[in-house]
Amino acid sequence: MEKRIYNFSAGPAVLPDEALKEAQENLMALPGVGMSVLEISHRSKTFDNIINQAKEDLIKLLDIPDDYSVLFLQGGASLQFYMVPLNIMPPKNKADYIVTGSWSKKAVKEAKRVGAVNIAASTEEENFNRIPKQEELKLDPDASFVHFTSNNTIYGTQWKSEPEVGDVTLVCDASSDILHKKIDVSKYGIIYAGAQKNMGPAGVTLVIIRKDLLERCSDDLPTMLNYKTHVEKNSLFNTPNTFGIYMIGLVTKWLLNNGGLDAMYERNKNKAELLYNCIDESGGFYKGHAEKESRSLMNVTFNLPTEELEKKLVDEALAAGFSGLKGHRSVGGLRASIYNAFPVKGVEELVDFMKDFQAKNS
Amino acid sequence: MEKRIYNFSAGPAVLPDEALKEAQENLMALPGVGMSVLEISHRSKTFDNIINQAKEDLIKLLDIPDDYSVLFLQGGASLQFYMVPLNIMPPKNKADYIVTGSWSKKAVKEAKRVGAVNIAASTEEENFNRIPKQEELKLDPDASFVHFTSNNTIYGTQWKSEPEVGDVTLVCDASSDILHKKIDVSKYGIIYAGAQKNMGPAGVTLVIIRKDLLERCSDDLPTMLNYKTHVEKNSLFNTPNTFGIYMIGLVTKWLLNNGGLDAMYERNKNKAELLYNCIDESGGFYKGHAEKESRSLMNVTFNLPTEELEKKLVDEALAAGFSGLKGHRSVGGLRASIYNAFPVKGVEELVDFMKDFQAKNS
Repeated sequence: MEKRIYNFSAGPAVLPDEALKEAQENLMALPGVGMSVLEISHRSKTFDNIINQAKEDLIKLLDIPDDYSVLFLQGGASLQFYMVPLNIMPPKNKADYIVTGSWSKKAVKEAKRVGAVNIAASTEEENFNRIPKQEELKLDPDASFVHFTSNNTIYGTQWKSEPEVGDVTLVCDASSDILHKKIDVSKYGIIYAGAQKNMGPAGVTLVIIRKDLLERCSDDLPTMLNYKTHVEKNSLFNTPNTFGIYMIGLVTKWLLNNGGLDAMYERNKNKAELLYNCIDESGGFYKGHAEKESRSLMNVTFNLPTEELEKKLVDEALAAGFSGLKGHRSVGGLRASIYNAFPVKGVEELVDFMKDFQAKNS
Repeated sequence: MEKRIYNFSAGPAVLPDEALKEAQENLMALPGVGMSVLEISHRSKTFDNIINQAKEDLIKLLDIPDDYSVLFLQGGASLQFYMVPLNIMPPKNKADYIVTGSWSKKAVKEAKRVGAVNIAASTEEENFNRIPKQEELKLDPDASFVHFTSNNTIYGTQWKSEPEVGDVTLVCDASSDILHKKIDVSKYGIIYAGAQKNMGPAGVTLVIIRKDLLERCSDDLPTMLNYKTHVEKNSLFNTPNTFGIYMIGLVTKWLLNNGGLDAMYERNKNKAELLYNCIDESGGFYKGHAEKESRSLMNVTFNLPTEELEKKLVDEALAAGFSGLKGHRSVGGLRASIYNAFPVKGVEELVDFMKDFQAKNS
C-alpha cells in the first residue's frame, strides 16, 4: 500500500484510516448487495439504511433535540450563505452578522441580496486575530437572526462558546469545527457545515434546522433552495451525494466507536496544546497569529521571524512528510489544521520537527 | 471479493469495473501523493490535474468547441431547472419548453418563477410515450431559449436528434443520455447533466455553456447561482465534489480507452436492439411503452399481460441476479436501464431469462 503522509490541509482534510479502509474494502460491492455504494439507487432500501444511520449517529453524537431536522444538501456553505437569508430573513428582512473572517464576509455579501444586514461586530481592523467579546456585540433585538462563524480557518480563531443573543434565532456556519466537541444544539436555529473538514469528503452540506423556522420559508422560493423541500423529503427530493453521505456515516461510526464528542474534545485540546506550547515556549521564534483567548483548536496559525524562514520550514516539513502547512495568503506564515481525524502522533512529530528547526535556524 | 450483480437501476447506476477498480486500489492514497483523493485540497496541484484532465477528456470525447466552458457544479439537474432561466431567460424573460416527461415538467415549474413559459409541445396526453415531431413544435422565434430533455428515463423515450430551433438558443437536460453518442455541441447553448447515470457517481452536475451566453447573467445574481462565478474560477469558486470529479475522470478515461463515443454508440444500439427484439418477437407477451420511433437506447420500458406477471418477473429476475428492473409507478411494468457501463453480457443474459420466463408463463 502507498505510504500515507501527515496531511495538515485546511479542507478537504484528513479522514480516519478506519473509515477509508472500510470504504476501500467495499468499494466494488457492498456486502450482501452486489453493487458498489457508488452505483446503488438513492431510492433503494440499502441507501435508506445508510442515510438514516448517518442521521441517527449525528443526532446521537450532538444530542440533537426532536424539534430539529437534519439535512444533507449540496453546494457547500457558500450556497447556505444565500439559502439562510432567503428562507428565514423574511418577514422582517433584517439580520445581524458577526464578522470574524473571510467566510463571514462572504455570508454578509449574499445576505445583502435578501435584506438589511447589520454588522453586529467585526474584528477586520485587527486582521481578524480575535473573536469579539460579548459586550462588543451591537445586536438588534428585533433581527430575524444573528449569524456567526464558529471557527475561522484562515485566521485560526474560534468561539469558545456561542454569542448570547437572547430570544433572537442564532445561525452558525460550523463548517470547520462541527463535531469537534459537544454543543447545546437547542441554542441554535440553524447550524450548517460543509462536510469536508471534520465530517467527510467534499460535496455534502449538513444543515440542522429547528422545525418552527420552516414557517418562515415562502412557498414561492425555488424548489431546491427551499428548506421545506428537503425536510419533507428527508434530503431525497432529488439525488443527493450518496457516496458523501455514506462516508459521513463511516466517520460518525468512527466517532461513536472512539468515545463520542467528549473524548474527541479532550483529544483536540491535547493536540492543540502541544502546538501552542511549542509556539509559546519558542522565545518569540514562532509567533501565533490569533490572540490567546481566541485560539482555534482546529487551525493553528503562526509566523516565523522572516518569510524566508517560513518558506524554508514549509519546504523542509514537506520533504519530511508533513503536507499542507503553508498559511493562507491573508495571514502568511504557517497553518497546521488538526481536525478530529488528525492523529496525535502527527502533532507530536511536527512539534519535534519545529523544535529541531528552531535549534538549527536561530 | 463480493460478487457483483447486474444493476439495471435508472440512476445512480452501474459504473465501469475498470473505474471502480482503480478508485478502490488508490483509495487510501493516490500514487506518489500519500493522501486519499477524498482528503486532498481542491487547491492542490494534484487536484488541478484531476479536474483539468476530466475536462480535457470530455472536450475530446464530445468535440466541444473552444467557445464553450465545461463546469462541474453541485445540486443536480434539479438546481439547473432554476439556474438556467435565472441566468439566461433575461432580458426577454420568455422561453419555450418542450415537455416530454416528468423532468421536463419540473424544469417548467422552476422557469415560471423567472418569466413566461411557452409549452412548445407536450405529449402528456399520451402518457409521454413518444417524442413530438418537428412539425408539432410551436416555437416562438423571439424566445430566450428552447429547452428540451434529450432522454426520458421514466417513459423510455429519446430524441433521435435535436429539435430544429433556428437561431434561438437550444438548452438540453441530457442527464440520462450524455456521452451515449457523439452530438454536435455547436448546436447547443447549454447542455447540463447530472453525473449519476452515464458519467459517474451522484453529486456532480456537468454544465457545458457557450461563453457568449454569460453576457446575459446579471451581476446581481446570488454568487453560487451565477454561471459567471463558476466559469471565472474553473469550477473552483468553492470546494467542489472532488471525489465525484475524480470518478468522472476515471469514466472518461475508460470511454477513451474503449474507442470513444462512436464505439460506445454502436455498443448501446446493439444492447438496446437485443432487448427491443425480444419484446417485439414475444407475440405481445412483452409490450413496449414507447412508440417505436421514440424508443430510448438507455431505458427500455415494457409491460406484461398482468401486474401479477410483472411482479413475478421482477422478483424472479432479482433472485437470478438482475437488480433494479421495476418500472416507475407512472408507467408501471418493467424498466431496464442499460447505460454506457452496462455490459452486453448482462443484456444477453436478461434476454435469455425473459424468453425462458415467457415460455413458462404464457
